[in-house]
Amino acid sequence: MIRKYPSALLENAVNEFAKLPGIGRKTALRLVLHSLNRSPEEVEAFGQAMIELRNEVNYCRVCHNISDDDVCQICSDFSRDAALICVVENIKEVMAIENTGQFRGLYHVLGGIISPMDGIGPKDLQIESLVERVKSGGVNELIFALSSTMEGDTTNFYIYRKLSETGVKMSIISRGIAIGDEIEYADEITLGRSILNRTNFVDTLKL
Amino acid sequence: MIRKYPSALLENAVNEFAKLPGIGRKTALRLVLHSLNRSPEEVEAFGQAMIELRNEVNYCRVCHNISDDDVCQICSDFSRDAALICVVENIKEVMAIENTGQFRGLYHVLGGIISPMDGIGPKDLQIESLVERVKSGGVNELIFALSSTMEGDTTNFYIYRKLSETGVKMSIISRGIAIGDEIEYADEITLGRSILNRTNFVDTLKL
Repeated sequence: MIRKYPSALLENAVNEFAKLPGIGRKTALRLVLHSLNRSPEEVEAFGQAMIELRNEVNYCRVCHNISDDDVCQICSDFSRDAALICVVENIKEVMAIENTGQFRGLYHVLGGIISPMDGIGPKDLQIESLVERVKSGGVNELIFALSSTMEGDTTNFYIYRKLSETGVKMSIISRGIAIGDEIEYADEITLGRSILNRTNFVDTLKL
Repeated sequence: MIRKYPSALLENAVNEFAKLPGIGRKTALRLVLHSLNRSPEEVEAFGQAMIELRNEVNYCRVCHNISDDDVCQICSDFSRDAALICVVENIKEVMAIENTGQFRGLYHVLGGIISPMDGIGPKDLQIESLVERVKSGGVNELIFALSSTMEGDTTNFYIYRKLSETGVKMSIISRGIAIGDEIEYADEITLGRSILNRTNFVDTLKL
């Protein structure tokens, strides 16, 4: 265990790094000492990149993905199928699905999944805006691409009940992805196939 | 592999994080997205801590350890034995030895070890200032506490030859630490004992 730091500046920098998830104090010290071997300009660029991102980050007002503009590149790409919406937990899943090259619709980023254990309920997520988006028309199908966990299943089912009366088709990516696995770590071939082989959501309730 | 980012700000922040040693692009993305869930003030504090450290870092003019002042806290502590100098590679080793509570002398931080493979020669290290420090008098003993590797042994021997004519006693921390292991990862008891059981350097050359 590291107890004494020779410099308050150093200790402060280590403390800040150690606040990040998965970074312990030894790793934090290693990363901070590394930065002392970099040029002041490089370290300035690093620090400023984080500060700028946090201060200037913007979210697409349609799909809630991170975006530099008011409407993101995906939502403003008219060659994509706006009638098909893939419902995902977070931006990481958007990136993973985009990388498969198998999906030409739009997204809806919930910002999480319903998880009573973590105190996350439907009101904390972008579910109401999804309901409005569907009810405002032009949407034929939703594809649920949430993590294959109890929380993901709960969220799928919650949205399904909210929208079942609208008649919109609701699919779920095929369960080629192992139960308990998380979307972002799936390999691209499995993930791409699961988009193509999506199953009618009601059918999966009977399994 | 992550190829497309929905935002240039995000991509820039991920790129900056991924430049750090041992941080891949997936980890970088995870850390950057985490920062979006923190307050702007927290992220500002993180970025500023790194920039401030880099711009304002100062090194003790006696031992070359990182220090907020011109002379570090250890060198300016008159209750310590200024006749006993422990030669270390880096600040991490100073912190590790201080944590053992077994050493009451001063340090000399070389800033690395001689490593021809990495292009690091004696001129790149604080060896000349160590020689001057010893020749200016008042030093009875040097303790070599470099990593127990070929590079560490080379550096010990280089300093030994430079100073053998001065008559200063040169010791080496006892080889209770396994050959090939690095100082910073040793447990405190082994490291503390190796300071107490140090061996005359010339004797170790005969082993």
